[in-house]
Amino acid sequence: AVRLQESMLSSASSFKNYRGILNWCVVMLVLSNARLFLENLLRYGILVDPIQVVSLFLKDPYSWPAACLVIVSNVFIFVALYTERKLAMGSISEKVGLLIYIFNLTVILCFPMVVVLKLPSITPVGGAFALGVYTILFLKLYSYKDVNRWCRERTQVKARSLSRSLSYDRRTYMYYFVFAPTLCYELNFPRSESIRMGFLLRRFVQVLYLLFFSPLKRSALFNSVKPVFILQEMDYSRMTERLLRLAVPNHLIWLIFFYCFFHSSMNFVAELLRFGDREFYRDWWNSETITYFWQNWNIPVHKWCLRHFYKPLLRRGAGKLLSQSAVFFASAFFHEYLVSVPLRMFRLWAFMGMMAQLPLAWFVARFLRGNYGNAAVWLSLIIGQPIAVLMYVHDYYVTHCQDDPTISEAL
Amino acid sequence: AVRLQESMLSSASSFKNYRGILNWCVVMLVLSNARLFLENLLRYGILVDPIQVVSLFLKDPYSWPAACLVIVSNVFIFVALYTERKLAMGSISEKVGLLIYIFNLTVILCFPMVVVLKLPSITPVGGAFALGVYTILFLKLYSYKDVNRWCRERTQVKARSLSRSLSYDRRTYMYYFVFAPTLCYELNFPRSESIRMGFLLRRFVQVLYLLFFSPLKRSALFNSVKPVFILQEMDYSRMTERLLRLAVPNHLIWLIFFYCFFHSSMNFVAELLRFGDREFYRDWWNSETITYFWQNWNIPVHKWCLRHFYKPLLRRGAGKLLSQSAVFFASAFFHEYLVSVPLRMFRLWAFMGMMAQLPLAWFVARFLRGNYGNAAVWLSLIIGQPIAVLMYVHDYYVTHCQDDPTISEAL
Repeated sequence: AVRLQESMLSSASSFKNYRGILNWCVVMLVLSNARLFLENLLRYGILVDPIQVVSLFLKDPYSWPAACLVIVSNVFIFVALYTERKLAMGSISEKVGLLIYIFNLTVILCFPMVVVLKLPSITPVGGAFALGVYTILFLKLYSYKDVNRWCRERTQVKARSLSRSLSYDRRTYMYYFVFAPTLCYELNFPRSESIRMGFLLRRFVQVLYLLFFSPLKRSALFNSVKPVFILQEMDYSRMTERLLRLAVPNHLIWLIFFYCFFHSSMNFVAELLRFGDREFYRDWWNSETITYFWQNWNIPVHKWCLRHFYKPLLRRGAGKLLSQSAVFFASAFFHEYLVSVPLRMFRLWAFMGMMAQLPLAWFVARFLRGNYGNAAVWLSLIIGQPIAVLMYVHDYYVTHCQDDPTISEAL
Repeated sequence: AVRLQESMLSSASSFKNYRGILNWCVVMLVLSNARLFLENLLRYGILVDPIQVVSLFLKDPYSWPAACLVIVSNVFIFVALYTERKLAMGSISEKVGLLIYIFNLTVILCFPMVVVLKLPSITPVGGAFALGVYTILFLKLYSYKDVNRWCRERTQVKARSLSRSLSYDRRTYMYYFVFAPTLCYELNFPRSESIRMGFLLRRFVQVLYLLFFSPLKRSALFNSVKPVFILQEMDYSRMTERLLRLAVPNHLIWLIFFYCFFHSSMNFVAELLRFGDREFYRDWWNSETITYFWQNWNIPVHKWCLRHFYKPLLRRGAGKLLSQSAVFFASAFFHEYLVSVPLRMFRLWAFMGMMAQLPLAWFVARFLRGNYGNAAVWLSLIIGQPIAVLMYVHDYYVTHCQDDPTISEAL
């Protein structure tokens, strides 16, 4: 109709449905992959190197230190399970229970760290994997402890009625929680009605495709690591150019990782376990503030922080800003823990990167609104991450590879 | 909240707000441009070649054939204006008026074609520009004729009351229509209240940036033209790889062109003329059928076709499918006209490309739904266009450049 109206792409227009742009990204990704696959095929023939993939995780094929670490983690699950049973039966006091929990949780964080630092046969990738598993377990058992305590407190008020969780087989339910894609324990998780085989299969194919058959990823990885080593010449305009060249493939890898982990893998596991709550992320791509991004890109961690860290702090009388900063501080600690220990390098780049979010969040919220705010969030993701990555890769190269002539030449 | 819910990116979820992804595209575009600009600056220094840009439009700096053609087009505007005046005053009959119009409109299409074909000093870019201006004028004057006739017919019924259009200065209003970003004549265009200087400036900067200071565009153009010449070796897997390599930059150029022309330029002109109806495109990026894409990507042409071609055909008793095919046929004719004449090559690739949309539209509507349909539309855009472009560039090279050793060597 002929009337006064704005174009859809104008910020003045209220139109916001861009689902098609997402499909565009997928089509472009698949096409680029197809082209690179065909190019590699024409140039080198079929080229699959499973040894190379395995060597990321293992140095010696007869010793599996990371896998052993993961198996040992069962001990900590059982400690939590039996402490909780004793507490429920009333055979140990709340104080003793808390002490056992504190001890158990501390060991969960320290034991794998010591093993990774002391055992030279663990590769950085294997170490990061094991530490990741232990960190997730730490958060899950912390939640398990809190929720069970809250329940006991509530049932004490209600004249010690039987807790609903006792109606389940406790051990099975504990393992369901350990494998479920969530960090927050619930007495009754919402369950989906059945396993949709088509959905399961599509997620499985996505994970397989994105993890293994993606030449784009390999080419991007190679391109992102290669130019780092120019950093040693301190020419600023050249450094900026190299950083920008590194930023785009690094960012694409992060996006692929996000989709592969938070959408495909988690939905796959959830479908398999008939786990109903699939809110693993919210619309962080529309974030107009840094805070909105951190609250919405990783919902399992966000929910955990809110329920077991931020709200308890508020209840104990801490201010909002202090509690928020404490959450960022804890997050910064875990980022550093997951990067420094496997690399055996303590540089605090990851820690500082997380802490830098606080002044950045203030700046964006203060000066930028709407689409400009959103662009600033994207820019901080695209530029911020590779700076941290660059620092680590650079330092890792300087300490590990500089004396190795084969690596120096290859790069 | 912990409840049964799907992930936002699942097709089962009803969430559709991806405005942030659009901002992501803009940020990525600006960053890629910045990187290429910096790279060029580091490698070659500041490099601006206005002569090269001008030489696209002019062969001889003292003869401006395309510009002369555009100036001459005023004659046809005046013929239409004075025919209409005579018709309004009743000094010529409807039949005579129609004959003059038919003659005028035929000359509008044939005269520039003959000039472009006969005058060797017109470059392909200059010729395409002049023919584009004449085609737009043809569509506008056709609409002018129709609307005025409809008004006369209506006012005849209402006892020949004074037409509202007479209250305007006809000549000024005619030129307002000629410059307005629409093809459909109205007696009263909706007008915006004032010229927003900020909006005007932003659109102006966008056009300038996208047209001139975009090294990404130049690099994409170069990459898209270069590999075409491998076509002569008929190796199919290699041809596919080259086509895919050409498809992505070609598609990016098309997207930039779309934004630059349909958003920035048209909004700039509309703001300047206080032209209120800014619906130059609708959400074609969400198209789930080929038909939806053609109905929504170019609203001025779509509105014209609907009002002056499709609906009149239906009124005369033609079927829906026949009328739709006729619209595609007319569109195919104009596509061919705008490409073949400036290149002085009649190959029918553009014509066939347009006509191929009909069976494609049937196929997509019949077999694909939702996100799959949308992906098919994107794929037809990304792959379909470069095939046609490839055909023309290939043929142009074979007929024009093969004997020229400097060009053959440069490629």
